[in-house]
Amino acid sequence: MALPDADDPGLLTPAETSLLTDQYELAMAASYHRRGMNEPAVFELFVRHLPPHRAWLVAAGLGPALSMVEQMRFAAGELEYLRSEGFGEPFLDYLADFRFSGDVDAMPEGTVFFQSEPIVRVTAPRIEAQLVETLLLNQINFQTAIATKGARIALAIGGGRPDREGRLIDFSPRRDHGVDAAMKAARAAALAGAGGTSNVAAAKHYGLRPVGTMAHSYVMSFEHEEDAFRAFMEDWPDNAVMLVDTYDTVEGVRRAISAARATGVSLKGVRLDSGDLGALARAARELLDEAGFGGAQIVASGDLEERQIARLVGEGAPIDLWGVGTDLGTSRDSPAVGGVYKLVADMPVAGRWRSAFKRSPAKATMPGPKQVFRRRVGGEMRADVIASASESLDGEPLLVPVMRAGARVGSEPLARMRDRTAAELESLPAGLRALTPDGPPYPVSCSKLLEELSALALAGHDIEATA
Amino acid sequence: MALPDADDPGLLTPAETSLLTDQYELAMAASYHRRGMNEPAVFELFVRHLPPHRAWLVAAGLGPALSMVEQMRFAAGELEYLRSEGFGEPFLDYLADFRFSGDVDAMPEGTVFFQSEPIVRVTAPRIEAQLVETLLLNQINFQTAIATKGARIALAIGGGRPDREGRLIDFSPRRDHGVDAAMKAARAAALAGAGGTSNVAAAKHYGLRPVGTMAHSYVMSFEHEEDAFRAFMEDWPDNAVMLVDTYDTVEGVRRAISAARATGVSLKGVRLDSGDLGALARAARELLDEAGFGGAQIVASGDLEERQIARLVGEGAPIDLWGVGTDLGTSRDSPAVGGVYKLVADMPVAGRWRSAFKRSPAKATMPGPKQVFRRRVGGEMRADVIASASESLDGEPLLVPVMRAGARVGSEPLARMRDRTAAELESLPAGLRALTPDGPPYPVSCSKLLEELSALALAGHDIEATA
Repeated sequence: MALPDADDPGLLTPAETSLLTDQYELAMAASYHRRGMNEPAVFELFVRHLPPHRAWLVAAGLGPALSMVEQMRFAAGELEYLRSEGFGEPFLDYLADFRFSGDVDAMPEGTVFFQSEPIVRVTAPRIEAQLVETLLLNQINFQTAIATKGARIALAIGGGRPDREGRLIDFSPRRDHGVDAAMKAARAAALAGAGGTSNVAAAKHYGLRPVGTMAHSYVMSFEHEEDAFRAFMEDWPDNAVMLVDTYDTVEGVRRAISAARATGVSLKGVRLDSGDLGALARAARELLDEAGFGGAQIVASGDLEERQIARLVGEGAPIDLWGVGTDLGTSRDSPAVGGVYKLVADMPVAGRWRSAFKRSPAKATMPGPKQVFRRRVGGEMRADVIASASESLDGEPLLVPVMRAGARVGSEPLARMRDRTAAELESLPAGLRALTPDGPPYPVSCSKLLEELSALALAGHDIEATA
Repeated sequence: MALPDADDPGLLTPAETSLLTDQYELAMAASYHRRGMNEPAVFELFVRHLPPHRAWLVAAGLGPALSMVEQMRFAAGELEYLRSEGFGEPFLDYLADFRFSGDVDAMPEGTVFFQSEPIVRVTAPRIEAQLVETLLLNQINFQTAIATKGARIALAIGGGRPDREGRLIDFSPRRDHGVDAAMKAARAAALAGAGGTSNVAAAKHYGLRPVGTMAHSYVMSFEHEEDAFRAFMEDWPDNAVMLVDTYDTVEGVRRAISAARATGVSLKGVRLDSGDLGALARAARELLDEAGFGGAQIVASGDLEERQIARLVGEGAPIDLWGVGTDLGTSRDSPAVGGVYKLVADMPVAGRWRSAFKRSPAKATMPGPKQVFRRRVGGEMRADVIASASESLDGEPLLVPVMRAGARVGSEPLARMRDRTAAELESLPAGLRALTPDGPPYPVSCSKLLEELSALALAGHDIEATA
């Protein structure tokens, strides 16, 4: 085995994500294994409190997370490492044969959700359920953060309703938190309505539209700005979007027009990457229209975020496409979603489910497997009720089967998730679609039964559960 | 080829990071290739403005980034995809043989740096230099953000000087932005002085100490809290750190003591994960000491960040280890470092370097390859001067050779980077070590020559350069 090395690229294969886990998961698993405690257990993933600046969240990341869970293996290298860390042979033998065999119910990606609502429920032998915790949280927390940010930007672009024309473009790879973040930020942005990404690998893997123009360094690589424009038009006649702000933006637009006339190439657009984007977009639009390039698009970029976009859209800035990088890819104003994964039921006596719960101050959990029912009136979300999974209440149950006995159920294409996200945003009460939420928070309550069970659990009673 | 799929795990091999690039890099590269524009060029990576809440940054991420650059390849799958996107055969042939062959000079990881200072300088055939841009930025920007956050936490733990005892533990995988982020957050935290990580894969790849205790779900998996403690002590007698806040923290400490007495296992510590950590730590310390467990450590966790840690340290809270997750792994208060990568020189005429620069409002760059000289007096950093690379000024030149002709030069172990970070933090002026910087910003100026060159360039003169 090569020595650990500061220069290790640190990229894992799906199988190697078996060790992308907190050490305690393995320590607990080994203890359960030694004690024969591998009866079924139920864990739920939920967010205790909505993060700052967010009145709702868009569930994302489930698909890739479940694919990794399916592919997780403990191969020789992983087992050798764990042996060196003191794990015993019987447990290593167990890991050598590890395959996730559990059931997963979840809110489909693109579903809007709120605090306390379980979005993923895992029912599996205790050790398996424990060993997938870190990976599920690692994938779902941040992708939910990015999809939610993307949805806010899509609402800004659409003037308060979700943009369905794909006018958001993901420009985030250079600011995303690493390779996986860049792949998933593009995917989460697409789910939120983005029409393309600058990230070629993500475009390839997720079937997205790769989008790009040119960098300032291209313009600077030629003697004159117009030389650069002509060269690019000749080399990419179908993608003639010129970056016009390297020297002087308005002059740059004139040179783009001049280059298009000289080359006979149809000017597809100009990109503005600095300055007063509203004023420059209007100036550019005027010059382009006067020159007969009414079809040329105006692309804006440069540290954009949703409030600034909303202001520009509100002012009628003639911007056709919005390239958003840093703010989209890091969800800069709220970069963490605090999803947790908690034991809610287990089976200490074979065949008999027992509700589990936690009483820590400010970190209490509700006992037993749960379902969320959403009531809509006239297409508008009105209220969610968190219920015991055994209940059948009015409204749409949001958690649906996505994995049974370790195999995926009902995989769906990104396009469907994107449609769901847009429909969910449309159905949000208007005050909640505002970038700074206006009005009361969305009503989320517990069913009467769940409240009773919680009270009983808090009083120290054992509670049977149905999983 | 399998159809693109929403369930793709989205994990790339190092070779596949060739497509982890903005589309325009490839579009520009194809254009340069078609025009035979592949003469040497120089690009520099720098931060225009320090991010919010940061008075300095800690350079990080170079090692893995350069390893990926070394391993980048365009294999059949990548070429096929690019062909389908309209790239022509001569360029695809070029890519099929692509190996990065350039030179890289950089500040070693762990170096503290400031706005406008180049931290990486790439000298390579123009196409190669262009094709590594996105990957370098993707890796270095976020790892620098995390290392800087880690350094701030290490300063809080050390009471204003960098903790050198490894009392920070990375607990971030569940909140990091994906798999790669989790690997690199652990690495960046180690560089900042962390003594361990909960992330087993990162511990394996980077030779870090894997650290873990137990989760609330473990405690809840037993009939009584003390049963759980006894079981864990029996199964992990050398790692008997008990999570004591599942039900009632003080009661939990008593049960941990009782379990240790019953099992005869040496209680290694207790972990507090909620509540008033200062008061609970004092109560726990008292109980442990009274019971004769003076060597048992107190581990604090639960949404910790540096200001809260500084307050607890200032109050003398008897906390030995600090498990930090979300804030460390996402650099929550400042999750993005805005590094850019700019052309500073090229060679339009063979053998003659020309300085390149950009005049965009508020985004101007300085012409030509550069070096940074740092002056220290009595071990304290006093001032940095950004100079032309051809100059030799007083002070330590911060950029050193790290790659020549595509091969690494002078790789170093993480431990050395960690020592450098601590030494750099020690040598910061005291006001800048404060979590809320106090006093004037650190002085960074340009050399007289560089100012003259910038003025000439701004006036439209061509400037020769030395690379």
